[in-house]
Amino acid sequence: MQAARLHEYTDDMSTALSIDELDRPAATAPDEVVIEIEGAGWCQTDNHVIEGMWTEYMPQDLPMTLGHENSGTVAEVGDSVTMVSEGDQVICHPVRTCGVCRACRMGEDMYCENVAFPGLNTDGGFAEYLLTNERAVITLPDGVDPVDIAPHADAGITAYHAAKKAATELVPGSYAIVIGIGGLGHIGLQCLSAMSAATLVAVDIKDEALDLAERLGTDHTINSTTDDLAAEIESLTDGVGAEQVLDFVGSDETTAVAPDVLAPGGDHHIVGYGGHVHEPSQAFVNGEFAYRGTLVGKYTELQELVALVEQGDVELHTSRYSLDEINTVAEKLEHREIEGRAVITP
Amino acid sequence: MQAARLHEYTDDMSTALSIDELDRPAATAPDEVVIEIEGAGWCQTDNHVIEGMWTEYMPQDLPMTLGHENSGTVAEVGDSVTMVSEGDQVICHPVRTCGVCRACRMGEDMYCENVAFPGLNTDGGFAEYLLTNERAVITLPDGVDPVDIAPHADAGITAYHAAKKAATELVPGSYAIVIGIGGLGHIGLQCLSAMSAATLVAVDIKDEALDLAERLGTDHTINSTTDDLAAEIESLTDGVGAEQVLDFVGSDETTAVAPDVLAPGGDHHIVGYGGHVHEPSQAFVNGEFAYRGTLVGKYTELQELVALVEQGDVELHTSRYSLDEINTVAEKLEHREIEGRAVITP
Amino acid sequence: MQAARLHEYTDDMSTALSIDELDRPAATAPDEVVIEIEGAGWCQTDNHVIEGMWTEYMPQDLPMTLGHENSGTVAEVGDSVTMVSEGDQVICHPVRTCGVCRACRMGEDMYCENVAFPGLNTDGGFAEYLLTNERAVITLPDGVDPVDIAPHADAGITAYHAAKKAATELVPGSYAIVIGIGGLGHIGLQCLSAMSAATLVAVDIKDEALDLAERLGTDHTINSTTDDLAAEIESLTDGVGAEQVLDFVGSDETTAVAPDVLAPGGDHHIVGYGGHVHEPSQAFVNGEFAYRGTLVGKYTELQELVALVEQGDVELHTSRYSLDEINTVAEKLEHREIEGRAVITP
Amino acid sequence: MQAARLHEYTDDMSTALSIDELDRPAATAPDEVVIEIEGAGWCQTDNHVIEGMWTEYMPQDLPMTLGHENSGTVAEVGDSVTMVSEGDQVICHPVRTCGVCRACRMGEDMYCENVAFPGLNTDGGFAEYLLTNERAVITLPDGVDPVDIAPHADAGITAYHAAKKAATELVPGSYAIVIGIGGLGHIGLQCLSAMSAATLVAVDIKDEALDLAERLGTDHTINSTTDDLAAEIESLTDGVGAEQVLDFVGSDETTAVAPDVLAPGGDHHIVGYGGHVHEPSQAFVNGEFAYRGTLVGKYTELQELVALVEQGDVELHTSRYSLDEINTVAEKLEHREIEGRAVITP
Repeated sequence: MQAARLHEYTDDMSTALSIDELDRPAATAPDEVVIEIEGAGWCQTDNHVIEGMWTEYMPQDLPMTLGHENSGTVAEVGDSVTMVSEGDQVICHPVRTCGVCRACRMGEDMYCENVAFPGLNTDGGFAEYLLTNERAVITLPDGVDPVDIAPHADAGITAYHAAKKAATELVPGSYAIVIGIGGLGHIGLQCLSAMSAATLVAVDIKDEALDLAERLGTDHTINSTTDDLAAEIESLTDGVGAEQVLDFVGSDETTAVAPDVLAPGGDHHIVGYGGHVHEPSQAFVNGEFAYRGTLVGKYTELQELVALVEQGDVELHTSRYSLDEINTVAEKLEHREIEGRAVITP
Repeated sequence: MQAARLHEYTDDMSTALSIDELDRPAATAPDEVVIEIEGAGWCQTDNHVIEGMWTEYMPQDLPMTLGHENSGTVAEVGDSVTMVSEGDQVICHPVRTCGVCRACRMGEDMYCENVAFPGLNTDGGFAEYLLTNERAVITLPDGVDPVDIAPHADAGITAYHAAKKAATELVPGSYAIVIGIGGLGHIGLQCLSAMSAATLVAVDIKDEALDLAERLGTDHTINSTTDDLAAEIESLTDGVGAEQVLDFVGSDETTAVAPDVLAPGGDHHIVGYGGHVHEPSQAFVNGEFAYRGTLVGKYTELQELVALVEQGDVELHTSRYSLDEINTVAEKLEHREIEGRAVITP
Repeated sequence: MQAARLHEYTDDMSTALSIDELDRPAATAPDEVVIEIEGAGWCQTDNHVIEGMWTEYMPQDLPMTLGHENSGTVAEVGDSVTMVSEGDQVICHPVRTCGVCRACRMGEDMYCENVAFPGLNTDGGFAEYLLTNERAVITLPDGVDPVDIAPHADAGITAYHAAKKAATELVPGSYAIVIGIGGLGHIGLQCLSAMSAATLVAVDIKDEALDLAERLGTDHTINSTTDDLAAEIESLTDGVGAEQVLDFVGSDETTAVAPDVLAPGGDHHIVGYGGHVHEPSQAFVNGEFAYRGTLVGKYTELQELVALVEQGDVELHTSRYSLDEINTVAEKLEHREIEGRAVITP
Repeated sequence: MQAARLHEYTDDMSTALSIDELDRPAATAPDEVVIEIEGAGWCQTDNHVIEGMWTEYMPQDLPMTLGHENSGTVAEVGDSVTMVSEGDQVICHPVRTCGVCRACRMGEDMYCENVAFPGLNTDGGFAEYLLTNERAVITLPDGVDPVDIAPHADAGITAYHAAKKAATELVPGSYAIVIGIGGLGHIGLQCLSAMSAATLVAVDIKDEALDLAERLGTDHTINSTTDDLAAEIESLTDGVGAEQVLDFVGSDETTAVAPDVLAPGGDHHIVGYGGHVHEPSQAFVNGEFAYRGTLVGKYTELQELVALVEQGDVELHTSRYSLDEINTVAEKLEHREIEGRAVITP
């Protein structure tokens, strides 16, 4: 089978991955599942992996097939698999978990002590077939297209996970700020809208992004290049501040807004990772706010997101590319030229 | 009456405050209460106020009487006061709150929109009498000495507040690290011990502090000048990490341990404010941890701490000083020469 | 002023209340507020008070003016009142609370140790003027009509309070059952819809009520006289059951559905009080479900509901009656002949 | 191998089970584990199973080996098992779960859609060997005796599970009532004591049980045959009531105390199942309390309880019996003649 693989870390996206011919994987362990890939979303994190930015956090053996937002059709199952059978259409939770460590037993899949992350530390889904396991697959409801939903496997549940944490702290009349209305941000905004009755404020540096936010139902928009974000929030909230910030950018500039825009006791959720947090401890003490890191969501959260998609609560604009075009996609994303979310259809 | 007042910000503690003669305050508003001070704890924050370190966060009109850890006897009450009467012994929650703003209505006293903070932005308790209001006073149970308990009014509930937040995330078998076994830290350690069955690890740079921690029931101690904190925690927790860190120091060095010692999803509570937090956003994302600021606890939390003290679950070592010795106390604390917690007894 | 008062408990609604001439109340205590009533909602509980059904739970001195869903214009304020001034339009939280007991300090207004409940144990709002206090009033946003919003003061926040508790347990894909789409139920349904993305199932014995539920956005309807509720829920939820039940009827029949319709760990919220709960302890153990009583919501929850109303998330159909028609309203409600919610406009 | 089996439901405990000769089970599925039983606790529920009291809730094929509180040594493991190997000493979580249904994925083992409950609906541990699976076993720490800890497998985690739910609602100064200081109750009391700083009130009808409670650290004891429970609680709590009740009896009489002893918003946890709950809906509304059913705890809660046992926070008195004496144990428990907890040692 064909697979798009990283052989060397590089900043040159035009030759980042090469299309190799590999053996089709097989379900040798009893819980394994082989998926014939129909859609594999391209993610900003793929660019970061190519640049070597994840080596500090994840051991990686090159060459490695990238692609961690996968969906497709079950092609083969191990002997003990009961949840799916050949021919079922599924979306894949991005990680393979063991199901027996304490983290798994608590439902915290992402903290699994024996986790494998296809596309980040083992072969991923930019290929004709993907090897994963029963604990990673969710059967798609009728009428949900596997290509369209693929990016929800990682971008979607990451945004959903952050939005769900924020929603538990929001009540009618409170304010949530969503910074960065891009691939993840526009999903997070829709999730917040579906799961809370708070007032939503979309923040971006591009007016088109803010137009999209308006179409998706935000209550207010602020272009942070032309408006003073802190002053606008102070005015909107009568000086109280916003209870929650979802920061899909995570740059020095965006994380720095926390002490100025948060209500006391508020949370600044860090989803994007474009820079650093740098604040005096006294600011934390005075405002009693928190910076809370946000990882990919859990398996059960992907089930919940699939329910939102099925209900029509979350829309996602995708554009499709063949496996051959993979480096073009890498380059385009680098230059912010992808419309919606790119999905590879091998 | 006599009161110890700050006339000018200074780094010279030897002449920080001067003893002035003022009129005794009176309960002119119907909810006001005048306290004859029996004990007023001296706090590291008093040194910071003298240095001008709070002016960015709190407007202050000098001269101002310092002292925000107050207890004593009710000397006069306003017309509508029902909770206490003349002669009652009370401990004072450090702030005066309005009771009608949304924050007060939610029980979040410290977020009161009309808050006054005696000793930080209005006259405090290093004086013979203090003016506060009904919503600030808690009647002491029989047998609890007002001088001994005074430091709990701020140091105590700040530590309790942090420990209570941490305890809700701890279960038997999980680990909590307490950094800095000083005035607040040794209270926080006892609160954690009373409210959870987690394994407690005390961290300090002084062996005497760690000896105190052992006497107060910590399960492990680590001297971070001689031992590698991250390696020790990794070993103690079989590589999982600690679920909670209570950081009573808040320096660049202590806040930097979070990504190395926390279990995924863990919290680093910032109580002390000796420096900065500086971390890449990617570390937050990878470890899904949080830095959570911690302010003074709520009125109801001071009630809970008084219950702990009455039950004998929290001990506090104090040394007493007269109002005349106030600048000596300021200097001694600066040089870490105070044994236990200093209480002014005007 | 005129006031509709109960002199004797009775089952005869046609002569239940008499219109008496009383002195206008005055704000004698510093926190008191006198409201010129514009709207006072009539509630099923008023019928129950007339029948003497609340004497076991609340001491009542007759004669007493009924009416606990009040809104109007501030006519007079005590000396220490700062939140409102003469001429402001307000809705009244149904109880007067002290603001200093531990329950008040935790934000649990309804558990206030010194609570007064106008219309249930002191004079209420079926009158030209009502005496209450600052802690009970919420200023209405521009454009919100005081007569239309009056029933939210009790019916509304009771439904909101139950819906908010349920919403915290609901995720996309889970099911909530709302039993009884009447005065409270149709508000509860709208609140759930605004605050969660769960699938909503409306249950009633009247098709018109179910038509209303459909118009308000329920996902499914079940007429429990013609359909087998347990079988329908089993089928809808693939045998898992519903996570939450909001029971606005509370009869023997409706409470009995819990073990048959709830998912394990689910909650049956009792809002209406038409009968008894009767279940073997073993059923609780086997299904690990709960019956959870639901009282009136808190002051801050009424603020949140006002925000929902202002946003257009909750609609309420009212019909207006003069003070003279009060016994007609009592009779009509007894015979279920009131369209929407009756509001007295003195 | 020998196994004690139920062939017919009966009320005659003297001939309840018969010792049959069966084939030793084998690990045929890849995740299966065979345990050589060292200790199997006898539980009140075994008597109830013999009486046929669980047939309504659990399908049972007779003959069936009873015994659901099992510990022992791993004798054989399936091919994919990694957590344990032959010779390891383990305690068994009482149920076998699938690990792939949504309930398992959320960490809610007891709600597993494919659950098997050895001793309740498949062969249990009153035998020389037990067949279970990897997801059911927890390796014992050094120094923990498998016979002594066996009853914690069900009695222990049921009590722990209830105590943990209650502890999250308790703060210093609040009250928890433990009704029934028997096999489960005396464990629940110790768990509450370890995990909270609340004031504990033990209630029983036997003074010896109350003496045990005192030795285990309860703050107050009430013999409900000689004292008026409601009046005592009212007096102890200054009229506020207790925040939590753990009811290890669950009879008509014990469940009936809820409205009289609970603080507003409190919970009455039903663990024992000796009778019925019968209350008017209006009582739920007026007191806003809940009856909350309590099932066996989760796998991760058994890990937490093992930690408590290892720390010395929970002691358990056991008496040992051979497999031959099994009907003697059944009879003795029926007549309340077992000292501590009976453990069968096949």
